[in-house]
Amino acid sequence: MKTYLDCIPCFFQQALLSSKAAGIDDDVTKRILDRLAMLVPEIPLNSTPPETGRMVYKILREVSGVENPFKEWKDASMQKAFELYPSLKEKVAASADPLKTAVHIAIAGNIIDFATNPDFELEREIEGILQRKPAINHYQAFKDHLKDAASVLYLADNAGETVFDKILIETMGKTVIYAVRDKPVINDATVEDAVTSGLDTVATIISSGSDAPGTILKRCSEEFLAHYKEADIIISKGQGNFESLSAEQGPIFFLLMAKCPLIAKDLGVEQGDIIIKSQMES
Amino acid sequence: MKTYLDCIPCFFQQALLSSKAAGIDDDVTKRILDRLAMLVPEIPLNSTPPETGRMVYKILREVSGVENPFKEWKDASMQKAFELYPSLKEKVAASADPLKTAVHIAIAGNIIDFATNPDFELEREIEGILQRKPAINHYQAFKDHLKDAASVLYLADNAGETVFDKILIETMGKTVIYAVRDKPVINDATVEDAVTSGLDTVATIISSGSDAPGTILKRCSEEFLAHYKEADIIISKGQGNFESLSAEQGPIFFLLMAKCPLIAKDLGVEQGDIIIKSQMES
Repeated sequence: MKTYLDCIPCFFQQALLSSKAAGIDDDVTKRILDRLAMLVPEIPLNSTPPETGRMVYKILREVSGVENPFKEWKDASMQKAFELYPSLKEKVAASADPLKTAVHIAIAGNIIDFATNPDFELEREIEGILQRKPAINHYQAFKDHLKDAASVLYLADNAGETVFDKILIETMGKTVIYAVRDKPVINDATVEDAVTSGLDTVATIISSGSDAPGTILKRCSEEFLAHYKEADIIISKGQGNFESLSAEQGPIFFLLMAKCPLIAKDLGVEQGDIIIKSQMES
Repeated sequence: MKTYLDCIPCFFQQALLSSKAAGIDDDVTKRILDRLAMLVPEIPLNSTPPETGRMVYKILREVSGVENPFKEWKDASMQKAFELYPSLKEKVAASADPLKTAVHIAIAGNIIDFATNPDFELEREIEGILQRKPAINHYQAFKDHLKDAASVLYLADNAGETVFDKILIETMGKTVIYAVRDKPVINDATVEDAVTSGLDTVATIISSGSDAPGTILKRCSEEFLAHYKEADIIISKGQGNFESLSAEQGPIFFLLMAKCPLIAKDLGVEQGDIIIKSQMES
């Protein structure tokens, strides 16, 4: 997906939110915003948003010295997700189509972003999402394709959501490579977060080799790219991975909530919609 | 009011919104955002937001050649306001305290910003605002002070809201100087808009001499400042005038809705609250 002009104010908001999450003071935050501003004329609108997102966090690290601005936020999200894990597992076990329920749970986990708000009732929100019909629903194609797949590459999104991913991986019963970001960026999962979430017991965790909040292939490691090319099916979670891979060839299945209005527009859906989108080899 | 770090993404959003309102194409809009970005390191956080707001529209004018980006929006707002004028006049006439009702109507007019949205039901929204209690309510002080005032300086806000101001001015029955922006900035009223709204029949319209979306005294004309100093009472409408005059001495009465979360925070109220705030000479 290309960068829209509307992404530009949003990059500044992300830098601000991250600085606040990390407790960075106003003077240092202003220096981060000043550095980001210098970057604006260099942002090509035909690049994907995670290309610039990557720079936002690089600047934040360089100016503030903070490596993991969302550490507390991520730890709290994983804790919340652990609390829900048993009841969600029961829900899958009781389902007429456990895979379908697990796919929906994995997508619903995407709203854990908001769980640091004390007023946010995660369990009720997830229940609501599980009742909703996906606006793009290629579940049957996913199920069919997965059945014959020997190798699955699973592209992770946020820390916390990782615990919901574990449920889907357990339900699939396949050999899974679980790929995470190389460095902390936004609240995206790193190897450390994936291990904390227990993914090491159900998958082989690897780094994408990149610090972008998405999967920008030209920035990924050789090791990651080898898995990417060999995988029989790629499960791409969340917005950042969609933004960076939406123009790539499959076999990719995008599982996400279209939380951003521009991503929703790009997909031709409403903001907040649930997406199970097949991108098969042409 | 000082500039908060959160104002910085908002300046970019304003530039974007204005460019869209004016139908400026993406390439030119990107050049506007690039120029605005160059300004970010120069924004002093101890300046008021309208100081930078002024620069946003100066850049927009210089880069795009568009002088009045919100012209259609403003014309549509005034039209909507004219349609409501008779019923609002009846409401004032039927009120036990016509001045109070007229003050509330003048504040409610501030939501006309949203009236360009076809789904926005202006009449119902205004009705709702008229039922609400101001979060800061110095109405009695305003009434008392107005009674003895021979000269009133009225600082205008948006075009459209101007028609609601006319109702308050008619109800006050005082000699009023009605001050507007010198050039189009956001959807703020200019002399032309004030005349279109019929203010010339109830007040003497003057320009502030400044192109800021607020009243930055050091940027105002000598003529304006003479009226400012001589006025027995100053009625300041809207957020921009509050942002630029909140640290000045009175006798000012701020009438506004705190639509911006930072203005609400600065005032110690909730976003969306109605404010009648006295700022008397110390």
